[in-house]
Amino acid sequence: MAGKVQKKREELRILLINIAEARIIDGGISQIRARDLAKDAGCAVGAIYNVFGDLNELVMAVNGRTFKRLGDHVMGTVKSHPDSTSAETLVIMGHAYLDFASKNAPAWRTLFDLEMSSDHDVPEWYMSEMRALLALIAKPLAEVFPDMEAEDVALMTRGLFSSIHGIVLLGLERRISAVPEDQLKHMISLVLNNLTKSAQKK
Amino acid sequence: MAGKVQKKREELRILLINIAEARIIDGGISQIRARDLAKDAGCAVGAIYNVFGDLNELVMAVNGRTFKRLGDHVMGTVKSHPDSTSAETLVIMGHAYLDFASKNAPAWRTLFDLEMSSDHDVPEWYMSEMRALLALIAKPLAEVFPDMEAEDVALMTRGLFSSIHGIVLLGLERRISAVPEDQLKHMISLVLNNLTKSAQKK
Repeated sequence: MAGKVQKKREELRILLINIAEARIIDGGISQIRARDLAKDAGCAVGAIYNVFGDLNELVMAVNGRTFKRLGDHVMGTVKSHPDSTSAETLVIMGHAYLDFASKNAPAWRTLFDLEMSSDHDVPEWYMSEMRALLALIAKPLAEVFPDMEAEDVALMTRGLFSSIHGIVLLGLERRISAVPEDQLKHMISLVLNNLTKSAQKK
Repeated sequence: MAGKVQKKREELRILLINIAEARIIDGGISQIRARDLAKDAGCAVGAIYNVFGDLNELVMAVNGRTFKRLGDHVMGTVKSHPDSTSAETLVIMGHAYLDFASKNAPAWRTLFDLEMSSDHDVPEWYMSEMRALLALIAKPLAEVFPDMEAEDVALMTRGLFSSIHGIVLLGLERRISAVPEDQLKHMISLVLNNLTKSAQKK
C-alpha cells in the first residue's frame, strides 16, 4: 500500500513537471500559478505542495531540464563543426548560446528568473548542472591559453559565460539600442576573437 | 491661473520622482506602488496619473537619474587615475561599474527591470543617456584598436558593456557559483586585459 502511494506521488511529480515545463516554454515563469497547475493536473491545489515544497522547487526542476536541453544544443552544434580550432569552438559555443536563448526565450529567461541570492537557496544538483556547462567552456579555453594558471582559467570560464550571457540578454531585450540578431553574432565573434587572439599572437 | 496650475503640476512631478527615487534606492521597483506614492506625496492616487502616463514613466524618470549617477561614478573613477593607458582605462571603467552596481544594487537593477522589449517603448531621452554612457567606453576602445573599423568599434563597445554587465549581474546574484567580489574584479581584469592584449601584441 505504501508503495502504491509512493508511485502515485512520483507520477504526480512527473506530471506536474511536464505541465510546468510546457507552460514555461510557452510563456515563462509568469505562467506558473498553483491553481492553473492543479486544474491542468486534475488534482487539488494542496496536492502540489505534498510533492513540491513550493512552486520555486517545481520551477527548479523545469530549469534542470532546460539546462540539459541547452547543454545538448551547445554540444550538438560543436559536434557539427568537427574541424574547428579551440578558439573557433568558443565562438561556435557563443553563437549556439545565442541561438538557444533566441529560440527558447521564455524557458531560457526562467533559468535566471528565480530568486536565489544566497548560496543556501541553490540546490546542489543545480550547481552541478552549472559546473557541467562551465566544463564545456573550460576545455577549449584551457587549450587556447595553455600557460594560464588553472585558477585563472576557471575564473575566465565564468567570465566568458557571463560575458556572452550579458550580450545575449541585453541584445535580445534590445536594452542598448536595437542590434539585429546577426549583428549580435558578429558582436560575440568580435569579443571572443579579439580575446583569443592575444594567446595566438605570442 | 493656468501658470499656477502648471507650477503645481511640475512641483508634484518633482516630488513624485524624489519619492520614487528614495524608494527605488531603498528596495528597487517592487517599492513602487501608486497607493504608497500617493500617501508619501500627500496627494490622491489619481493625481499621479495626471502627471505621469503610468508608473513605468515615473520609474523611467528615476532611471534617468540613476544613469546620470552611474556615468558620474564611472567618469569620476577614471579621472582619479589620470596616468592610465586606454587599455587600463577600460579595466578601471569595468571595476567602477561593478562598484556602482554593488553599492546601488536596487537602483541599478531597476535600470534593467523595466519591460521594454520593443523599440517603441524606449523614450528617445533614455536612448540618448545610454549612447552617452557607451561613448565613454568607445573612446578608449578606439584608442586601443586604432585600425578597427568604426562600425566594429561601435559593436564591440556594446559587446564590452554587455559583457561586463553580464559578469556583474551573474556575479552579484551568485548565479554561477559564489565568486567573492574581489574575484569579480579579477574576472573583469582577465577578460578585458586578454582582449586588449591582442591589439598591443601586433
